Amino acid sequence: MPSIVIAQGGGPTAVINQTLCGAIVAARQNDASLRILGARHGVRGLMAKDVVDLTQLSASDLARLGNTPNSGLGSTRDKPDPSACATILAALDALDARAFIYIGGNDTAGTLDLLSKRSTSACRFVHAPKTIDNDLVANDHVPGFISAATFVAQAFSSVDLDFRAMPGIYVGIVMGRHAGFLTAAPTAWQRTEDDAPHLVYAPERPFVVSSFVADVAAVYGRLGRCIVAMSEGVQDETGRPLAEVLAAGALERDAHGNVQLTGGDLGLEIGKALKTHFPKARARVDTLGYLPRGFLGTIDATDRAEAYAAGAFAAEQALTRSGSVVLHYDGDRTAPRLVPLDQVAGQTRHMPDSFFSSDSTVSDEGRAYFRRLLPPRPDLFTPFV
Amino acid sequence: MPSIVIAQGGGPTAVINQTLCGAIVAARQNDASLRILGARHGVRGLMAKDVVDLTQLSASDLARLGNTPNSGLGSTRDKPDPSACATILAALDALDARAFIYIGGNDTAGTLDLLSKRSTSACRFVHAPKTIDNDLVANDHVPGFISAATFVAQAFSSVDLDFRAMPGIYVGIVMGRHAGFLTAAPTAWQRTEDDAPHLVYAPERPFVVSSFVADVAAVYGRLGRCIVAMSEGVQDETGRPLAEVLAAGALERDAHGNVQLTGGDLGLEIGKALKTHFPKARARVDTLGYLPRGFLGTIDATDRAEAYAAGAFAAEQALTRSGSVVLHYDGDRTAPRLVPLDQVAGQTRHMPDSFFSSDSTVSDEGRAYFRRLLPPRPDLFTPFV
Repeated sequence: MPSIVIAQGGGPTAVINQTLCGAIVAARQNDASLRILGARHGVRGLMAKDVVDLTQLSASDLARLGNTPNSGLGSTRDKPDPSACATILAALDALDARAFIYIGGNDTAGTLDLLSKRSTSACRFVHAPKTIDNDLVANDHVPGFISAATFVAQAFSSVDLDFRAMPGIYVGIVMGRHAGFLTAAPTAWQRTEDDAPHLVYAPERPFVVSSFVADVAAVYGRLGRCIVAMSEGVQDETGRPLAEVLAAGALERDAHGNVQLTGGDLGLEIGKALKTHFPKARARVDTLGYLPRGFLGTIDATDRAEAYAAGAFAAEQALTRSGSVVLHYDGDRTAPRLVPLDQVAGQTRHMPDSFFSSDSTVSDEGRAYFRRLLPPRPDLFTPFV
Repeated sequence: MPSIVIAQGGGPTAVINQTLCGAIVAARQNDASLRILGARHGVRGLMAKDVVDLTQLSASDLARLGNTPNSGLGSTRDKPDPSACATILAALDALDARAFIYIGGNDTAGTLDLLSKRSTSACRFVHAPKTIDNDLVANDHVPGFISAATFVAQAFSSVDLDFRAMPGIYVGIVMGRHAGFLTAAPTAWQRTEDDAPHLVYAPERPFVVSSFVADVAAVYGRLGRCIVAMSEGVQDETGRPLAEVLAAGALERDAHGNVQLTGGDLGLEIGKALKTHFPKARARVDTLGYLPRGFLGTIDATDRAEAYAAGAFAAEQALTRSGSVVLHYDGDRTAPRLVPLDQVAGQTRHMPDSFFSSDSTVSDEGRAYFRRLLPPRPDLFTPFV
């Protein structure tokens, strides 16, 4: 019996199961004779023919699945080598698969690109996008990003109020090894330059400790507080991730030759630098870590709808051709399109230069982009202090 | 012109401004001749007579203020000494204060107890409770706790789904120096023992590294994942906070004489211990830090209503007497009462022994308590893996 196989790869998001639901419902509508199979833990499960039959999933189960964050089919970070590719293609043949829809980021697109180039069958390979990093090329933005970005915006707005109530310096370290979108997103909710985050450090710009300390001193001097959004992937001037430099216990010197950061974890070392340079200030460094990426309390309605639509579009396209679904924005509306897999596979989209007004601040253009995506900031009372 | 003075002390919560609003509205209704003054940054502002007139605050401003998390009047952790007490009492006299309502935790109650005992005027001193730690004695629970606890429950439920999708070990470090309520609260959402958090380490029970490693190994072996909720205030067998021991760079030995943790930050060291004992596992340690205590996206409706009611009750009581407002639960409903200030001042409520079934698990009684307070868990789909 012919089938369509769906799987999920990479880190989870708040809405990745919406994409799964969109694909299931559309596949069913397009061709009622198809079995719809879900592979557990991505290609890892597919290699073992470990699949679950999703054809008869009820409407209420679909609704609950869609509203449950994180990959319902399980996930994997496995990158198949040539031998694994052969096993996967054989498994798809054995399952009489007419299409394989793989929901994931650029590594997932890369896996599909590999498979499609090696396949000798009529099976189509369609990539449905998801990532909180927003780092897929050819996309205006990516399903999963808006919910995660909204969590980060909520976090920094809340912390801003916290530090209005009691002055001090706060650094929140945000996921993002190569792209700063998630770290910069809370600037969407800035109404004046007094609103947090006051400083934004993304992997796209060099992170120099002496500049960081000077930036913080300027804001803290002006406002009595300073809220910093910092990517976990910030890099030194030579392009080495700071976290790696620190992990290696290497010696960091700023432009003035001062040793600044040595050994250990990024957050801990940033905390030490603050203690050294601002010994009297209340200073706190938090690592937001995994919290933004599938938070039960912050699932954005637009993100949910776009994720569902991307899955449905993937299933439609899979009737006839392979490719990567991307979200296209025409200046008015966002809609899915299909592009060749190798246009997305293995590539990383970065924040453009025009999104920055300095190494530590986001430009009006950058803010406008995030403002277009995120829900409006709640109507907050301006504190009496 | 006679006045009533209101201030906020200590760490903020998501609903502390509801208590402020409740006090303002009730004070106005009780005696329209009173000026209602807010002291900026608690007793620090009061000493400087730095007050804002709240008498004419509009209904729409009150609504926005109430829905804005974190202390709108600003806060302080200052503990007045005898000389400062004299300055504060003189300031209250100069403002013709009939009452001073101070919203805060047990330190704030302590300040009011001091002031009330030194005062020679007719001014009443009323403590309105707030704390995310839930550690005020004589209270069933404390305004601010439910919202923070819901955030923590959302976080651990989300992470549980994340680690179902990709196996591994997660440790979330939760605020709470002396009381484990906030850390244990996510057990409210456990339906089976497969649901996170699988292990709970609170300051009330000794934290032994070898036991921790054995506990994690057992859960990880059974489920392929292990989600741990750990208080930042966990203590070793001698009652010393582990974070302090680590900060001092002291040597930790487990029951078997193995050196386990040395130097540095709690989360970092827990991460190292996991790497040592589970070298092949995906392991992650996040410090939730300030996020739960005033998160814009998670403000519970019950918490909001109880916080408002506590403020309104404080203003009513302040017409005639001093004391600490506590939330009393009669087995059916929660309502505010007034108790003497010294019954609450400077004391810490701990999780009772009956809330634990072991050093790392919460009992049915404990879970039932948290389940009564928190909103029900969202109806989640059980993943296919």
